[in-house]
Amino acid sequence: MKSAILTIGNELLAGFTVDTNSSWLSQNLNQHCIKTIKKSSASDNAKDISLELNSLFQIDVNFLFITGGLGPTSDDITRNTIKQYFNLEEEFDNEYFELLKSKFRERGIKMPSSIKSQAITFKNCEMLDNPKGTAKGLYIFHKDVKVFVLPGVPSEMRAIFEDQIVDKLPPKKEVPYLTLRSFGISESSLEQKIYSIIENWNGKVNFAFLPSYKGIDLRLNDINSSSKNLNKVKDEILQVVGKYFYGESNDTLESVVLAKLVKENITLSTAESCTGGRLSFYITANSGSSKIFKGGIIAYSNEIKENLLGINKNVIVKNGSVSQDVALQMAKAVKDKFDSDIGIGITGISGPSGGTKKKPVGLVYISISGLGISKVKKYILKLDRKMHQEVASYIALNMIRKSYFV
Amino acid sequence: MKSAILTIGNELLAGFTVDTNSSWLSQNLNQHCIKTIKKSSASDNAKDISLELNSLFQIDVNFLFITGGLGPTSDDITRNTIKQYFNLEEEFDNEYFELLKSKFRERGIKMPSSIKSQAITFKNCEMLDNPKGTAKGLYIFHKDVKVFVLPGVPSEMRAIFEDQIVDKLPPKKEVPYLTLRSFGISESSLEQKIYSIIENWNGKVNFAFLPSYKGIDLRLNDINSSSKNLNKVKDEILQVVGKYFYGESNDTLESVVLAKLVKENITLSTAESCTGGRLSFYITANSGSSKIFKGGIIAYSNEIKENLLGINKNVIVKNGSVSQDVALQMAKAVKDKFDSDIGIGITGISGPSGGTKKKPVGLVYISISGLGISKVKKYILKLDRKMHQEVASYIALNMIRKSYFV
Repeated sequence: MKSAILTIGNELLAGFTVDTNSSWLSQNLNQHCIKTIKKSSASDNAKDISLELNSLFQIDVNFLFITGGLGPTSDDITRNTIKQYFNLEEEFDNEYFELLKSKFRERGIKMPSSIKSQAITFKNCEMLDNPKGTAKGLYIFHKDVKVFVLPGVPSEMRAIFEDQIVDKLPPKKEVPYLTLRSFGISESSLEQKIYSIIENWNGKVNFAFLPSYKGIDLRLNDINSSSKNLNKVKDEILQVVGKYFYGESNDTLESVVLAKLVKENITLSTAESCTGGRLSFYITANSGSSKIFKGGIIAYSNEIKENLLGINKNVIVKNGSVSQDVALQMAKAVKDKFDSDIGIGITGISGPSGGTKKKPVGLVYISISGLGISKVKKYILKLDRKMHQEVASYIALNMIRKSYFV
Repeated sequence: MKSAILTIGNELLAGFTVDTNSSWLSQNLNQHCIKTIKKSSASDNAKDISLELNSLFQIDVNFLFITGGLGPTSDDITRNTIKQYFNLEEEFDNEYFELLKSKFRERGIKMPSSIKSQAITFKNCEMLDNPKGTAKGLYIFHKDVKVFVLPGVPSEMRAIFEDQIVDKLPPKKEVPYLTLRSFGISESSLEQKIYSIIENWNGKVNFAFLPSYKGIDLRLNDINSSSKNLNKVKDEILQVVGKYFYGESNDTLESVVLAKLVKENITLSTAESCTGGRLSFYITANSGSSKIFKGGIIAYSNEIKENLLGINKNVIVKNGSVSQDVALQMAKAVKDKFDSDIGIGITGISGPSGGTKKKPVGLVYISISGLGISKVKKYILKLDRKMHQEVASYIALNMIRKSYFV
């Protein structure tokens, strides 16, 4: 089964909005063994949309997903264009209008008059309820293609898909994909180390390398659409480069480390300087983190490092606040102060300013302390402020993984 | 001038990678008065790429940007496909190969053998240096279209664009766009309040509403491609709903609040529970934050709230840690402890578990204290864990803006 996705919006073409809907849709369609073979974007313009629809109906697909432009404001023109293109017959859904009114009353908000347009529905297609918003979706059968028209707001699009569309798709199947996630090795080194494995499976399993600052993902695809070879390939890879791989599929480094800490009931606290809270936020983004994360101190100034963490002033004066000794003391101090099993200390220069020749922007010291381990590592990252904060947080998480769980 | 963008990668069509390159490109092309009229994606397959190129050369564009698939690993097939499609003549760039070798030596890393392929260049097109990676870009002139082929890694694609391509585009012009950014008002309420302004400018200025959980952006576009009307429209809008608007274009709520704090030299500290560091991370994501941000305490457990922030144990027992009084005490305590002008306290239930009938998931108390102001507000957000943390952090920032700077 094949699918095409058309995203509609001037903002998409002008680049003011990043399209996350189409990737979410194709990932979910994958699970139903529907392959997305075409993606395109059209502007909020009836002619452009119609032309793109014409060309999409010429390719061989079973499903067409259209997102964007169903909202109540005047720039939302998809509804009318779709009505004309598919010859839909309008009617006013009074019951739905009353429901919308009562929803606004409940929330104590005056209903804007434009909302009334959301109660215009169509007779000769199926309307799809929107559990998260006011714009209903549409399901149209046209030229042997199942066409779904959905709002562009991601949470609404996803809710309609999950509530109303999944049942109209072929059943979910085990997919012939496996994603293995690594951190701390470069794309080309990884390929070099597993090259003979790749060669051996040539013609049976495809390997895709997906690099980012959060590590390299290795996506395996069984060409014969079964998943029986994938675990064998995985074992072979882990035997060679297992120490770099922390998880699979939707695992994140933070969720994996968190799960391991929870399982062993090891508590954690953080002392962050240059990462400014980002490490703690990665940890607490996962539910269940309260079981082992006691909290942290963001010691953004020397004053706080001294007064709240009790870092020795002489150490700061002698070595500077961005130094091995300060990082170590931060990890130890926060561990003691929060009475946790492990403490993490991070100090560095995220930039863009604040660097010197001896201590350049991107320099960071990361330390962990606890359960018989006390270490600190120095890195010079050459990225930008945001990436320095991100990567330093990731290195810290990976240090915990490698120190306590490998 | 018009442009089309073709992004290449199985991962894009399968949804494993979100395409941010095309939005970055069209935003930057906008500034050179180049309008992106078409975006599409093709898989890592020579035939699919060629077919899509055929169809793109049929539409009327001056520029074509192609991204993805130029890397050294075996799944990168764009280079060869492009070579064949445009009839390019290969040659081996020995000088570049030596440069690559020395770069790896400098970093103390053994160069993987696959990197050698990156030194294959082409005679009958222009090669574009890559300041951030090994894959060079290509500039080809074909059928009156300027074609740029770029790597898919965003930082590399952007670096080549900025270093090598900008000079080949028409000069930058003031663009007829203005984006006004609001927080704390719904899309339809905003439209209702400014409806007469929209009507008055009909035919001269277009209004686009861009809603997200971080507020509504209002993007104005002067239809006559000048920017002279935009400031007039802006003044009219701010007169009616100014209190909701915090900035323009690339301003973020955090960057605007930070700039105001720096300007008035007002220092800040945070006590976060349910947001787990996210508010601090938003603040410290901006350079210059060290001037006014003293730091914060992530008090994820009651124990830390009591011991480190000194919240009265009786208050926690009586009201629960998610309560108005605890939020207020957190804001005051962190202000005192960090000796800052303003303290922020946030306590709530991010979910998905931990809610009760009386205190549901999504409940959050946000408090600010300092400079003669002491207040706390209660919200019940009905989103998900990540959004609860995000939106609560944003509400806190907006509370500072409204309390001290409006």
